Amino acid sequence: MEAIKVGLVGITGYAGMELARLLAVHPSMQLVMACSRAESGKRLGEYYPFLEKLPGCDVIISQFTPEEAQAKCDLVFLAVPAGKAMKMAPKLLQAGVKVVDFSADFRLLDQGVYEEWYGMPHEAQELLSQAVYGLPELYAEKIAQAKLIANPGCYPTSVILGLTAACQHDLISPKNILVDSKSGTTGAGRKPNLPTLFSEVADNFRAYGLVRHRHTPEIEQEISKLLATPVTLQFTPHLVPMNRGILSTIYADLKDPAMTLEKVWDCYNETWKASPWVRVLPLGKLPETRFVRGTMFCDIGLAVDKRTKRLIIVSVIDNLCRGAAGQAVANANLISGRPLDEGLSHTAPLV
Amino acid sequence: MEAIKVGLVGITGYAGMELARLLAVHPSMQLVMACSRAESGKRLGEYYPFLEKLPGCDVIISQFTPEEAQAKCDLVFLAVPAGKAMKMAPKLLQAGVKVVDFSADFRLLDQGVYEEWYGMPHEAQELLSQAVYGLPELYAEKIAQAKLIANPGCYPTSVILGLTAACQHDLISPKNILVDSKSGTTGAGRKPNLPTLFSEVADNFRAYGLVRHRHTPEIEQEISKLLATPVTLQFTPHLVPMNRGILSTIYADLKDPAMTLEKVWDCYNETWKASPWVRVLPLGKLPETRFVRGTMFCDIGLAVDKRTKRLIIVSVIDNLCRGAAGQAVANANLISGRPLDEGLSHTAPLV
Amino acid sequence: MEAIKVGLVGITGYAGMELARLLAVHPSMQLVMACSRAESGKRLGEYYPFLEKLPGCDVIISQFTPEEAQAKCDLVFLAVPAGKAMKMAPKLLQAGVKVVDFSADFRLLDQGVYEEWYGMPHEAQELLSQAVYGLPELYAEKIAQAKLIANPGCYPTSVILGLTAACQHDLISPKNILVDSKSGTTGAGRKPNLPTLFSEVADNFRAYGLVRHRHTPEIEQEISKLLATPVTLQFTPHLVPMNRGILSTIYADLKDPAMTLEKVWDCYNETWKASPWVRVLPLGKLPETRFVRGTMFCDIGLAVDKRTKRLIIVSVIDNLCRGAAGQAVANANLISGRPLDEGLSHTAPLV
Amino acid sequence: MEAIKVGLVGITGYAGMELARLLAVHPSMQLVMACSRAESGKRLGEYYPFLEKLPGCDVIISQFTPEEAQAKCDLVFLAVPAGKAMKMAPKLLQAGVKVVDFSADFRLLDQGVYEEWYGMPHEAQELLSQAVYGLPELYAEKIAQAKLIANPGCYPTSVILGLTAACQHDLISPKNILVDSKSGTTGAGRKPNLPTLFSEVADNFRAYGLVRHRHTPEIEQEISKLLATPVTLQFTPHLVPMNRGILSTIYADLKDPAMTLEKVWDCYNETWKASPWVRVLPLGKLPETRFVRGTMFCDIGLAVDKRTKRLIIVSVIDNLCRGAAGQAVANANLISGRPLDEGLSHTAPLV
Repeated sequence: MEAIKVGLVGITGYAGMELARLLAVHPSMQLVMACSRAESGKRLGEYYPFLEKLPGCDVIISQFTPEEAQAKCDLVFLAVPAGKAMKMAPKLLQAGVKVVDFSADFRLLDQGVYEEWYGMPHEAQELLSQAVYGLPELYAEKIAQAKLIANPGCYPTSVILGLTAACQHDLISPKNILVDSKSGTTGAGRKPNLPTLFSEVADNFRAYGLVRHRHTPEIEQEISKLLATPVTLQFTPHLVPMNRGILSTIYADLKDPAMTLEKVWDCYNETWKASPWVRVLPLGKLPETRFVRGTMFCDIGLAVDKRTKRLIIVSVIDNLCRGAAGQAVANANLISGRPLDEGLSHTAPLV
Repeated sequence: MEAIKVGLVGITGYAGMELARLLAVHPSMQLVMACSRAESGKRLGEYYPFLEKLPGCDVIISQFTPEEAQAKCDLVFLAVPAGKAMKMAPKLLQAGVKVVDFSADFRLLDQGVYEEWYGMPHEAQELLSQAVYGLPELYAEKIAQAKLIANPGCYPTSVILGLTAACQHDLISPKNILVDSKSGTTGAGRKPNLPTLFSEVADNFRAYGLVRHRHTPEIEQEISKLLATPVTLQFTPHLVPMNRGILSTIYADLKDPAMTLEKVWDCYNETWKASPWVRVLPLGKLPETRFVRGTMFCDIGLAVDKRTKRLIIVSVIDNLCRGAAGQAVANANLISGRPLDEGLSHTAPLV
Repeated sequence: MEAIKVGLVGITGYAGMELARLLAVHPSMQLVMACSRAESGKRLGEYYPFLEKLPGCDVIISQFTPEEAQAKCDLVFLAVPAGKAMKMAPKLLQAGVKVVDFSADFRLLDQGVYEEWYGMPHEAQELLSQAVYGLPELYAEKIAQAKLIANPGCYPTSVILGLTAACQHDLISPKNILVDSKSGTTGAGRKPNLPTLFSEVADNFRAYGLVRHRHTPEIEQEISKLLATPVTLQFTPHLVPMNRGILSTIYADLKDPAMTLEKVWDCYNETWKASPWVRVLPLGKLPETRFVRGTMFCDIGLAVDKRTKRLIIVSVIDNLCRGAAGQAVANANLISGRPLDEGLSHTAPLV
Repeated sequence: MEAIKVGLVGITGYAGMELARLLAVHPSMQLVMACSRAESGKRLGEYYPFLEKLPGCDVIISQFTPEEAQAKCDLVFLAVPAGKAMKMAPKLLQAGVKVVDFSADFRLLDQGVYEEWYGMPHEAQELLSQAVYGLPELYAEKIAQAKLIANPGCYPTSVILGLTAACQHDLISPKNILVDSKSGTTGAGRKPNLPTLFSEVADNFRAYGLVRHRHTPEIEQEISKLLATPVTLQFTPHLVPMNRGILSTIYADLKDPAMTLEKVWDCYNETWKASPWVRVLPLGKLPETRFVRGTMFCDIGLAVDKRTKRLIIVSVIDNLCRGAAGQAVANANLISGRPLDEGLSHTAPLV
């Protein structure tokens, strides 16, 4: 079998770094193009010493051109900021190259919502209808047919997977859903910046982006679909002094005030029993971010508060693997006719 | 002026450690008794090397007896677990020694609530009515008259201070108050324990105590008083890989859906302008735990979500200083006729 | 091909935890026995939630007996403390089961040295001559023939690999070798213990075991062999507030005071060019522990001080993978006729 | 008594931040000028929220001019990089303002050594002879007479204090002194920079500046004076994933191979018994950086290796307080006729 030739635009960020290490051990994908304006001309192994003596280390970093992509790649991963991807994707698709886009540019079905939350006009609205939201648990079949994947955001992945079973089993009210999320610092990007210096983050905790974080409409869009009704919810992110991991504490009013934890747990198990990656923890257990570090797992813990009639869902993922690069590989697998979990059944250090 | 002679029972925990360092520089208090069963017989400076060459380092650690306390102390700090304090406090009070108790034993006015949440009978119910809840911002006058202070819990301190202005200005509904709190690991105690080993905590994040954390009724009691109506609320704590600090993200429904952030901010400033320790941050700023590290400050940031009609309050304190030992010193100051902030106007490393 | 059936005695420590995650993805080894006195009776996936939905999660933890090992296993990994392994290994070998021992019990050729540094009599001295020191870069051929492997210590692995090229090329004097090592906290074990609590380790740094750390004679034994002369050296370990990784800063007097860094670097490259796991960094680059996290790599940086005529070697490994469980798998591969790096060519999160 | 009016040039770095918090509680110094090009025009409390409700918070940040300093200040702290201080100090001194300089510009007596290690010409060589090296334990009397203090470097402070007693008691050989130091990340400065981002530092350890760190000649100068002979030594710094603290592991050959640890310990105690800040730990105890956090203490632990005839000294300080801002305050106290430890007898969080 011939290798799938892939390119990666935006290698210097944490998502790009994670993708580089995943591709180095992928049995059927081969990294043939790695792009970065700032690091152009270096060997990839020179820029990322951890890649030396691994496949891909000899790729020379280049500046992105659609021509190089067309000449070399079957598929390109775009690990670039929102606003840039919508300029690159059309050219790649025209050149016959499939695209898995890490940015938000193709995640929101409603162009107006995009423009309101991202504060810029959408320049490739013609692609919005053909892009598929790349959450394999919900859209595997459509992904396999697509040419352009909108890889989900990290927070939304944790929240949507956490709520899917509750929505599908009609356990919760669409009102009053509240999501309090906590993320490791790789989620804040790799650009040198005072607030993300070690000494500004270590032994510290803070909230950010209150009432206006851009992942809010993405979560609302998908939960609205799952509940088949428009949902407005509260979303608050926080910065944890750790490298990786997202934990979302999700609060929702139970439709049936007499609902028990055991019944909720049965519903979750029914939804996720056969899933390779979503693990519903035993009753009474709560997830920890380290147990999913570097992997595709989403671990879910549940509680029911009889006093407040609320369901509390604690959902954890690795923000860089499941929440970005790993999910992108899963989507690339499907889009390329490969098994969903190819190259993704690794483990990673728990401590 | 003669020094106030104080004793400390329970020196080996983090609250006791913090109190030892605060007393070492207190201008009018002198540590004359330090008790620990396990470390009895050692010099305090031998047990805590950081105390060497500081006042108090030559105290010999002893096993607690009411007789030693009576002979030596004007006031005793009890930094012992719930259940133990209620055995010690009566004897100390009978011996004419004032008590500042760090445990929950005298915080809850309703004995039944105590027994339900703490799972043991109360053995000193006669003292419940004379104990004063030691939150100086709310009860300074009563504290000054008391002989037994129930020093507030760390989470409750952050939540009550965060909500006081909103309650007093009648901004929020008593229904649907939701508190999502995050604490550093000193809050989990200093007893050797697998889940609090460095390698189990570092680069990790988790929730704990869902729907049954014992600080819930304490918060509800005080918010009910402030709102003058019984309040049932949601409280969820999390463990942050950092030493110190609590951040509580507090969500409440606005009574007036047209309420603006500016008006809320004015109310908060009115309440706290003259306070030495509660700081309302400028509009648009959010607090960080490091900025209150090792101090008595409570920093508060505010947001109003027009989409969900919610007020979001972010409140941070240092769990060991403001949330335990420092607050105990403030209470001891008041109870001893000293200025509230004596020995507490220090700063601490921000990074 | 039939799977190699392996057992693991001592699953609850960090080395056992690391081995469990490596075996879960090893293509030809199957975990069939997992032993722990304390956790006996539990499913492995119940004890280690990170193993759920992975191979091995359904193994029931048992108490170690040679009989179970004989019935089920081709090979047993002993992840037990020094002193225990020498009681178990003889019985396993008699039962025809190969042994890879993580402890120091079979590492020192000289029984007297063992008894001096470990403070107990050796109870299986008859096995000392047949045990092979499991450092594949030095002893691959002997390992492949052995039935009992003494898996090297974590610090010694970093130091011996760091010094091998300098010794083989006769660059350094045997006198005055000084090793200043720094290790993450997983090296201190997983037993609940005050000094390894998160809050005692975080934002803190300390030395330990000065002039008497037990890895000293192990390092001296192997460097003496490499230099073909008895070597006494200085070894000082330190505890770093991080989970994983060892960095050893190694100082040695250059034999030739005119030796240049370029020549040293050429020697190192000559020794390690073909090695799959030892990476000599480009001139002027220094290694970081994160770049080898969770892997078998040993990264080496070099400096020559013209003022002091010293060679400085900075060598980093992952203490749990390369320094314990991963090296054990490599040894088990060789001993079982499998390729050295089978199941070990994974990557792990860099951040 | 009138307050001593002080200015601070360079408030945005970690040393400036530390000085701001120390001055906020200093009983006789008053911050009247705070300079920063980038933050000019802001209230100090706006820039540093931790200063709100503390003395100094209302100072308006200005751009440095000698005129403002002359008009307002008795003394100015220069927390600016090497190269800038030598341009500012002459003007301040001419204006009759005393100077405590944090940079290296006036630390090295030999202009040639400065120019070799710092790579730039010295522009104020006429001041070199009148500047006093501000280590109070060695030079208190000269400091009290000076107008220009060269505040010592952080690493040198830990090393010189660690070696003083050994030098004064003639215990060690001047040859073969080797210093392996480890520092928290605040030592790397507060400028946004990829290598000091949280995710590049956390769970990571690395060496830097091998054989060419600029603190080398500063250490050599002072140890040469103490040993009354020219000393060339090895100095290697490392970066620890923690905010604060330096630990220096210092290796030196014992002059008398029969020297015992007990005798060495007696010498150290003789030297430091009366010192307010240098603490020699009990035999067998080793220091930890957290026990000196935020303070002026230098804790020293000792070991003698009978096998290698070496003395090993482990010395810890807080790099920002003792190693920069606190030491500057101590120097400013002396230069202003105040008690050495005024405003410096605080404690700080141990955890």
